Amino acid sequence: MPSIDELAISTIRGLAVDAVASANSGHPGAPLGLAPAAHVLWKNMKFNPKDPNWINRDRFVLSNGHACALLYSLLVLFGYDLTVEDLKQFRQLGSKTPGHPEATDTAGVDVTTGPLGQGICNAVGMAIAQKQFAATYNKDDITLSDSYVYAFLGDGCLMEGVSSEASSLAGHLQLNNLIAFWDDNRISIDGDTAVSFTENVPERYRAYGWNVLEVEKGDTDLEGIAKAIEEAKKSTNKPTLIRLRTIIGYGSLKQGTHDVHGSPLKADDLKQLKKSWGFPEDSSFYIPEEVAKFYADHIAEKQKYQKEWEAKFAEYKQKYPKEGAEVQRRLDGKLPDNWRQYLPTYTPADQPLATRKLSENVINALHGHIPEFIGGSADLTGSNLTRATGSVDFQPPSTGLGDYDGVYIRYGVREHGMGAIMNGIAAFGANYKNYGGTFLNFVSYAAGALRLSALSHHPVIWVATHDSIGLGEDGPTHQPIETLAHFRAIPNLSVWRPADGNEVSGAYASAIESTDHPAVIALTRQNLPHLEGSSIENTLKGGYTLVKQDKPDVIIVSSGSEVSISVAAAEELGKEGIKANVVSLPDFFTFDKQSYEYRKSVLPDGVPILSVEVMTTFGWSKYAHEHMGINRFGASGKAADLYKYFGFTPENIAENAKKTIKFYSGKEVLSPLDTAF
Amino acid sequence: MPSIDELAISTIRGLAVDAVASANSGHPGAPLGLAPAAHVLWKNMKFNPKDPNWINRDRFVLSNGHACALLYSLLVLFGYDLTVEDLKQFRQLGSKTPGHPEATDTAGVDVTTGPLGQGICNAVGMAIAQKQFAATYNKDDITLSDSYVYAFLGDGCLMEGVSSEASSLAGHLQLNNLIAFWDDNRISIDGDTAVSFTENVPERYRAYGWNVLEVEKGDTDLEGIAKAIEEAKKSTNKPTLIRLRTIIGYGSLKQGTHDVHGSPLKADDLKQLKKSWGFPEDSSFYIPEEVAKFYADHIAEKQKYQKEWEAKFAEYKQKYPKEGAEVQRRLDGKLPDNWRQYLPTYTPADQPLATRKLSENVINALHGHIPEFIGGSADLTGSNLTRATGSVDFQPPSTGLGDYDGVYIRYGVREHGMGAIMNGIAAFGANYKNYGGTFLNFVSYAAGALRLSALSHHPVIWVATHDSIGLGEDGPTHQPIETLAHFRAIPNLSVWRPADGNEVSGAYASAIESTDHPAVIALTRQNLPHLEGSSIENTLKGGYTLVKQDKPDVIIVSSGSEVSISVAAAEELGKEGIKANVVSLPDFFTFDKQSYEYRKSVLPDGVPILSVEVMTTFGWSKYAHEHMGINRFGASGKAADLYKYFGFTPENIAENAKKTIKFYSGKEVLSPLDTAF
Repeated sequence: MPSIDELAISTIRGLAVDAVASANSGHPGAPLGLAPAAHVLWKNMKFNPKDPNWINRDRFVLSNGHACALLYSLLVLFGYDLTVEDLKQFRQLGSKTPGHPEATDTAGVDVTTGPLGQGICNAVGMAIAQKQFAATYNKDDITLSDSYVYAFLGDGCLMEGVSSEASSLAGHLQLNNLIAFWDDNRISIDGDTAVSFTENVPERYRAYGWNVLEVEKGDTDLEGIAKAIEEAKKSTNKPTLIRLRTIIGYGSLKQGTHDVHGSPLKADDLKQLKKSWGFPEDSSFYIPEEVAKFYADHIAEKQKYQKEWEAKFAEYKQKYPKEGAEVQRRLDGKLPDNWRQYLPTYTPADQPLATRKLSENVINALHGHIPEFIGGSADLTGSNLTRATGSVDFQPPSTGLGDYDGVYIRYGVREHGMGAIMNGIAAFGANYKNYGGTFLNFVSYAAGALRLSALSHHPVIWVATHDSIGLGEDGPTHQPIETLAHFRAIPNLSVWRPADGNEVSGAYASAIESTDHPAVIALTRQNLPHLEGSSIENTLKGGYTLVKQDKPDVIIVSSGSEVSISVAAAEELGKEGIKANVVSLPDFFTFDKQSYEYRKSVLPDGVPILSVEVMTTFGWSKYAHEHMGINRFGASGKAADLYKYFGFTPENIAENAKKTIKFYSGKEVLSPLDTAF
Repeated sequence: MPSIDELAISTIRGLAVDAVASANSGHPGAPLGLAPAAHVLWKNMKFNPKDPNWINRDRFVLSNGHACALLYSLLVLFGYDLTVEDLKQFRQLGSKTPGHPEATDTAGVDVTTGPLGQGICNAVGMAIAQKQFAATYNKDDITLSDSYVYAFLGDGCLMEGVSSEASSLAGHLQLNNLIAFWDDNRISIDGDTAVSFTENVPERYRAYGWNVLEVEKGDTDLEGIAKAIEEAKKSTNKPTLIRLRTIIGYGSLKQGTHDVHGSPLKADDLKQLKKSWGFPEDSSFYIPEEVAKFYADHIAEKQKYQKEWEAKFAEYKQKYPKEGAEVQRRLDGKLPDNWRQYLPTYTPADQPLATRKLSENVINALHGHIPEFIGGSADLTGSNLTRATGSVDFQPPSTGLGDYDGVYIRYGVREHGMGAIMNGIAAFGANYKNYGGTFLNFVSYAAGALRLSALSHHPVIWVATHDSIGLGEDGPTHQPIETLAHFRAIPNLSVWRPADGNEVSGAYASAIESTDHPAVIALTRQNLPHLEGSSIENTLKGGYTLVKQDKPDVIIVSSGSEVSISVAAAEELGKEGIKANVVSLPDFFTFDKQSYEYRKSVLPDGVPILSVEVMTTFGWSKYAHEHMGINRFGASGKAADLYKYFGFTPENIAENAKKTIKFYSGKEVLSPLDTAF
């Protein structure tokens, strides 16, 4: 006679494999192997299925996202807004049960996972956020935040370098609130992990400063799993990796082989499985009554955690009205009133500065006013200028280098890990608006994470300095060429390239107020003048006419450091009686959201348009007819020499503007904004 | 009285800091710390400065490429084609001494480095290639290949996840021909590595299966360094990491601080340094006569290695004429005569197949005919279909899983590491044309390596399957949207998206014959019909008119899986008397290299052009006036449902073609190929 726990585990397994079978697509192997650990863990976790965003819930990250049939089954059984009917729609267009977990689609999914290695890094980010939130607001007498972050991960996640980066940092940061289960099933798509993955994972994690525990019989040893969780929670200064030896596809006729990883089970296999569980052989999506009752009771029990917390928070607000109001504001997703007042503004009389320096001005100006605005750099603090004067580092107090309520994160040279951690910080909630600095060119190292920021609607901010050949001597390995085109092609991503101080402040205004999309802010190493006509308001339109002429002969559209050169080019042209508008277009994504009428007023019919940017011209034909750019890799040399060599001088821009006017003379010129459908 | 070795080391240090000072830009810290190890190592290494590409030379990789002033100084002193005059041009536009080492610019630079973490992975790739080459051609009586691969790397390289991936694989593969020096100077740009990097590196590398040695006084203990190299060479089944404790900026007034990492030394510091070395205080680029003589003697000595090898190779060619001719052919950079005969071709009568399957056909067809064509997959062998039937895995013989003369590499779930290793295999020489498989969307994880493939002119090949929403149920985390735009914007990179069997063969023909650019080949999961009019020859033009009408009303330009749908759309239009050309454009890069006349014949004036591709439309305006694409993330669902949902049906394409014709009716239509300058 199976125990209720065993019956419950069989139910989870059954729902998962039936979902996969019903879709005739998906991954039954990992759910079969991980159901016991999932059941024991979810019984242990604090959460409220009726309020999936409760701030003090324990988080759960399925880093091996292909096992999502497991997660969906848990969500159904634990009373989230997901039903067996949804499971039957597994992997179908428009369902709440897509082929990998998507936080935007399904209540109870804490982060979008699938691309391997990302989830565990998100978990590190959540653990950082929890520590920071707790250290900022917990009081000796009232603990507002004490949640754990749990993650499941597979061999694939451990092979990905991104997880190495974040795991090393998690060890350094002593994140004892992070507990990860390694599904050590020794099978990946290529078969036995012996073909490529023979390192000693526990030793590696110990080298990172983790606590490593082992559960030898992860498929059956429920007590062992529970004990490991208990043990992990005792860790005072280390994250924990629980090595869970499992058999992939446990119970299936193909258990222990890679055949069971990514293909639905056959009908006979489903039958024998159900028989072995004591379920009707031909049942499908079967939930025994006692299991339904067991979970229902459990859900009722779970909801008390949030009730208790709500009471505590009420008391907190009374005792600590200032902090209480701040926490409430953050939970409501609101920024401090009139926060934009802190943003610096400039006039052309102000000293020319590098936009990275102007970005530092913003960070300094906001410091102390927006507690949820935290960030760091991938070991380029002095180059990215990302650290507010007087700010405290986020560090374990024992290091003597900072404290957990610090707002500045030393990421180390770990761009991809940083990107994925930033997503985790954002996913934690509490309105975190977190940024990370590196050179623009090395944001590409984090492409996998950046894409997930956009897909998951995380409003994270990349402070991406050294944004062009203007960085000079470091040369082509460091100079972005394709980078902005790449990022502009990602849906739901702002890619700012501000031209001066007001545009930098505007870019931050947009990025910090964003609730649904990330931003990359590309910033110069070299100084730029402040432009006549720039403003935060104009910047927030994504693009605007900076130099406006009556009946222009040509429009020069540009971004960042080339805008002021384009203005000088327009002046050159003016000397010859040629009228050139100059359009600053700091963010395609924001500009595209403006009304057609507005956009058309900036880029009208009848005037040829020339784009000017020191990168690939790829993609600029969206807004211009002719293009100046760099469709090759850069070069090592002085910035001024490079600008001249590549032709980005007022004289040469003016020359090309004249060629553009001549080429289109007598031809019908349509705005690139107009399309046939 | 300093020894000649000490004097030589001071000379290296002096040249390096003077180069940085003369440029007023660069990194003096690492060269000062690493000069002793470099001197001892280079004395030990086998190479011939007069033939920097000699196949059996020991390789040297400066993974911390910012220390390149060190490398350039070595190249000058060891008699490569680089002079003190070149050092004086350090970091200047057009010099042979750019700000990071570029293999394409400077003889003796084995790989282009700078972006951290890449170099050590390139070294792993070179070590794989050496093992594979040696196992393929060495005979019991004649050892053709026995070179070592040495690498210097810094803390930054160790923090990057890409190095974790490659290091784990190197341990698994038992690459005892790889010897890496970790410059353990405990300083990175953010200051003391204590702020973010406190893991136990030696333990981590032992966990990977490496041999770890220690040199406590790396700044002075020349004997210790020499002994460590000797010890490392004794390793029979492990790569070696030599932990070299050094002081960054050794001898400088700012030694041991991050101030000396990336800023030139001040005049007074240079003076006291030179004084401490016994050099004239005001000297610059000083090479004591005895040091010049020392290295000159050494160079003469070194050249004998290659002479001995040439004699051995001559004997080899006599004794083993078949293998000898093959090696000679490979060293000459030639493919087997008429190799293209092996490429499969198809007619419309052939069975529709997924292009990933057609790619497998190519790999199978070439297997056994082109020994330098080797490759693998990042744990997606059964999905990428990258393994030739009957091929042997590249594995340490002791594993029983393959042998070192195997041609198939099990990369594990390590896309970025794979990309950087592929670059290393290509950099080894011997005409290696190596490929790596993963899903197209996860090539993005390797963006850092892919960019360096293009910059370094490595003809590596990405077999990138599951290239669109056509992969179906796995959903938006796996479906490329921005990916092709990103890659097409990278200079010097072919991005193939073949439409059928002949185009797949054509893409491989181009990629394998390439000597100066990499290729990404994007392949479908779903079946596609073979097209009337496709051929290898047409494909090699990058784009061609597949359906040609007399005086067409519209041109539909498309790629990959949408070409056959576009042909069906043209047929739909034909029923209404509308004439539509269909252009297949499998590779922008190759098409752009064709003559203007040819390109203009494909995309002429006077006909509106509609592009059709199930990804972002970003960048397509280079070739088309109107665009069908997907400017959002994808969705999880059946492939057929998704194609319909996103409007990629013959009917809808025909509808949009009609709208296009209507929109341009009465307007002057210029080919997008024509530009003003």
